[in-house]
Amino acid sequence: MSFSPLIQQLIKSLRCLPGVGPKSAQRMALYLLEHDRPAALELAASLHEAVERVGECASCRTLSEVSPCGICTSSSRDRSVLCVLESPVDMLAIEQTGGFGGYYFVLKGHLSPIDGVGPDDLGIDALVERLRGGEVREVILATNPTVEGEATAHYIAEQVRELGVRVSRIAHGVPVGGELEFIDGGTLAHALAGRRSLN
Amino acid sequence: MSFSPLIQQLIKSLRCLPGVGPKSAQRMALYLLEHDRPAALELAASLHEAVERVGECASCRTLSEVSPCGICTSSSRDRSVLCVLESPVDMLAIEQTGGFGGYYFVLKGHLSPIDGVGPDDLGIDALVERLRGGEVREVILATNPTVEGEATAHYIAEQVRELGVRVSRIAHGVPVGGELEFIDGGTLAHALAGRRSLN
Ligand SMILES: [Zn+2]
Ligand SMILES: [Zn+2]
Repeated sequence: MSFSPLIQQLIKSLRCLPGVGPKSAQRMALYLLEHDRPAALELAASLHEAVERVGECASCRTLSEVSPCGICTSSSRDRSVLCVLESPVDMLAIEQTGGFGGYYFVLKGHLSPIDGVGPDDLGIDALVERLRGGEVREVILATNPTVEGEATAHYIAEQVRELGVRVSRIAHGVPVGGELEFIDGGTLAHALAGRRSLN
Repeated sequence: MSFSPLIQQLIKSLRCLPGVGPKSAQRMALYLLEHDRPAALELAASLHEAVERVGECASCRTLSEVSPCGICTSSSRDRSVLCVLESPVDMLAIEQTGGFGGYYFVLKGHLSPIDGVGPDDLGIDALVERLRGGEVREVILATNPTVEGEATAHYIAEQVRELGVRVSRIAHGVPVGGELEFIDGGTLAHALAGRRSLN
């Protein structure tokens, strides 16, 4: 079957959304055209406006059309703790735990010499400048537990230590609710090495 | 955490897509803004253009910005068989089986006296007119196996019979690959009643 060109084009465009395969894209396109054209127009407008106007927060570098962003201007958070992350999605993940009340610094990536991504591209110079202000007493490195994330955390840790600021790395271990048999060996080795006494 | 207003608005708009919950919408919005703004703009344009220009095929009533649509203008299909469906998505589902080579007629809904949806709203008058042309020798009723779909099929069957045209209903039964214990009783009863001899 061939849908008409504009429907095919819409299906193709919907595939840009993460997690949307060919079947979902078809279903979405037909659903919108059959049942909710006003919502489709609203989505088009929202996409357009967000792309045109969302930039980054000058303070934490997260995505925002206002700068500084809502979190950076909040006065009820703890200015002595700064959490360093690779991306705004990770910031969201940590905020949603409800267990962190400090501020953030988003690197927007990790060190990658091969791709020409160095410390300044990640704003590590700006981070160091901020730490020189003296307000931050602990930097929590929450980059991804990947080779690149570890290397980036390692690099930043050295800079932070030189400034005499405390620095920590999020813990590796078995995910809550996970079953041991399905956890990879590297994680399991970390979980064993990082075991905590229950005495 | 509160995202900036435009990001929140984008997340809210993405929820209009079927199957997209709050978490997926967040992930989609951040992904597009971080990694693929050109694709987001293309999606906005595709949505806008499809909504503005996609109408329906005057012949089969499916969604299309060209009328008659690609299937209705195809000369390699069998003009003697017409399949009647509730929606363009169903047409897609049947086309994808590869097992049907006739033409279609899309009702865009089912009879629903409570909602004021009568035969003319579904184009059943146009369908009857088309059958009077004499080219169609069998009408396959492929409305949904729901109460409303059955009632709609029943109504159309009567009209078609009066014209002396053959009319059939898609078979009810156990889905291929399904396990009996998980199949509802109504379906199972239909499967038994419609059993076919293997002799
Ligand atoms: Zn900020
Ligand atoms: Zn058509």
